[in-house]
Amino acid sequence: MKQYDTVAIVGVGLIGGSIGLALRERGLATTVVGIGRRNASLKAAQARGAVSSTTTDLEKGVADAELIVVCTPVAQIAHDVLAAAQACPENSLITDAGSTKADIVSAVEKTSAKSRLERGVRFVGSHPLAGSEKNGALNATADLFDGRVVVVTPTRKTAADDLAAVSDFWSALGATVLHMSPVDHDRAMAATSHVPHLVASVLSAITARADQPLCATGWRDTTRIAAGDPELWRQIFLANRANVLKSLARFEKSLNSFRTAIEREDAARLERLLSEAKQIRDALGN
Amino acid sequence: MKQYDTVAIVGVGLIGGSIGLALRERGLATTVVGIGRRNASLKAAQARGAVSSTTTDLEKGVADAELIVVCTPVAQIAHDVLAAAQACPENSLITDAGSTKADIVSAVEKTSAKSRLERGVRFVGSHPLAGSEKNGALNATADLFDGRVVVVTPTRKTAADDLAAVSDFWSALGATVLHMSPVDHDRAMAATSHVPHLVASVLSAITARADQPLCATGWRDTTRIAAGDPELWRQIFLANRANVLKSLARFEKSLNSFRTAIEREDAARLERLLSEAKQIRDALGN
Repeated sequence: MKQYDTVAIVGVGLIGGSIGLALRERGLATTVVGIGRRNASLKAAQARGAVSSTTTDLEKGVADAELIVVCTPVAQIAHDVLAAAQACPENSLITDAGSTKADIVSAVEKTSAKSRLERGVRFVGSHPLAGSEKNGALNATADLFDGRVVVVTPTRKTAADDLAAVSDFWSALGATVLHMSPVDHDRAMAATSHVPHLVASVLSAITARADQPLCATGWRDTTRIAAGDPELWRQIFLANRANVLKSLARFEKSLNSFRTAIEREDAARLERLLSEAKQIRDALGN
Repeated sequence: MKQYDTVAIVGVGLIGGSIGLALRERGLATTVVGIGRRNASLKAAQARGAVSSTTTDLEKGVADAELIVVCTPVAQIAHDVLAAAQACPENSLITDAGSTKADIVSAVEKTSAKSRLERGVRFVGSHPLAGSEKNGALNATADLFDGRVVVVTPTRKTAADDLAAVSDFWSALGATVLHMSPVDHDRAMAATSHVPHLVASVLSAITARADQPLCATGWRDTTRIAAGDPELWRQIFLANRANVLKSLARFEKSLNSFRTAIEREDAARLERLLSEAKQIRDALGN
């Protein structure tokens, strides 16, 4: 990938901090500026070695950045992208790490008829599938993206060079890059991430205190992501509301098939449903 | 625990094989007889070092056993317990490793007014919460029960000495032993294991092939147990049918609350529901 003099990271939690660590450990950027609202987070990122300097002033932080990666919560990303676009150098490139894409990309693009925001600044959306139920820069690791998938979401307005530059950025951090439209991304993530999260939260929510000593590996695996940040996930569910509700309807339709088989004591049908589910799970590996 | 001359294990898959390995590595039994229907499984158990001798003949296998552990699929356990009781020495003790308990314990106990089956043979039900999506003796490990919970399920017919002997057996394998009635056990397992398994299977079943490259850690954790053996799980769901359906109704009621909050874009309520789920998950540790 292109070597950058200055990369700015807006929001230095787990994802932002891990990007900073990876850039610095791999020698891909001379200066990594960490931008955040809370001094405590910025100090944690600096203590972790994830950034070379920090500021709470977004305009100041992006002033020299050729590349800006916005890693704030999804409800705030479009705002931060547009604010960065006004303060960064001409022709800078901006991407993000939000778990939803259609709302963010359309909010940014509707400010401009072309892919260039102003003064030649461009935005291409990204989503690294490398979250965790752990938060904060103190949990950041330089290899968080190693072997993980990052979805980059070009639109008809995206220039090929910009798509390549953002894709190269994530590849340089060790990720496998996939390209999808923002709309396809959000539909797929509702099915593979957002509804699983919702279901994990429900399973956790209904666990009675008296039953907690019996919660073994199966319960722990199935509910692990329910430990995720409620504010972040509330934003994701609402930002991707239509797709989440559609995927949830599909989930319930399938759940009804399983339930009916149990109600009717239809052993053959129940075993077939379980076998089909196992086949898909086995195909995905551990 | 009491040292045993001969322990017989009926069904030498992951659980039976791991019991054999643990007994032999800890020097708790002089002879461990592996009993199974398929020569391939018996050979695997012997290759793994889990048993000192093997046979496909249940009557022959239990002939010298002071302790018999029945680790066959749940639908077969009561039958195997009663068959073993007719062929084992006087005063032997039998337990099992089935994931459901009420049906098994009542099927065994209804053959006798007292806890003694015949010739002084006694049965006390057990359930080690140490399964895995992996099957077979080749995956067995001597530490499978180390730090895990084993539920032992006495009834009013159970003698205190027998409860103590079965509890000591599992403790000697490294487990933490809890006592519950068979009925309480089945109700709790529906909530903490069977419904999570059902939900994991549904999540896996509805995953479209095109979306599979996007299945990241969250999906993998949430669906891991869907790789479990469909025949075993079909038996568990049907054996514990009433409790599973009751727990499922509870799951759906809670899911409706989450869905309504998303439908109505009720951010405060959605975040509160997610926070409550996170609190419970956080309390259970990793």
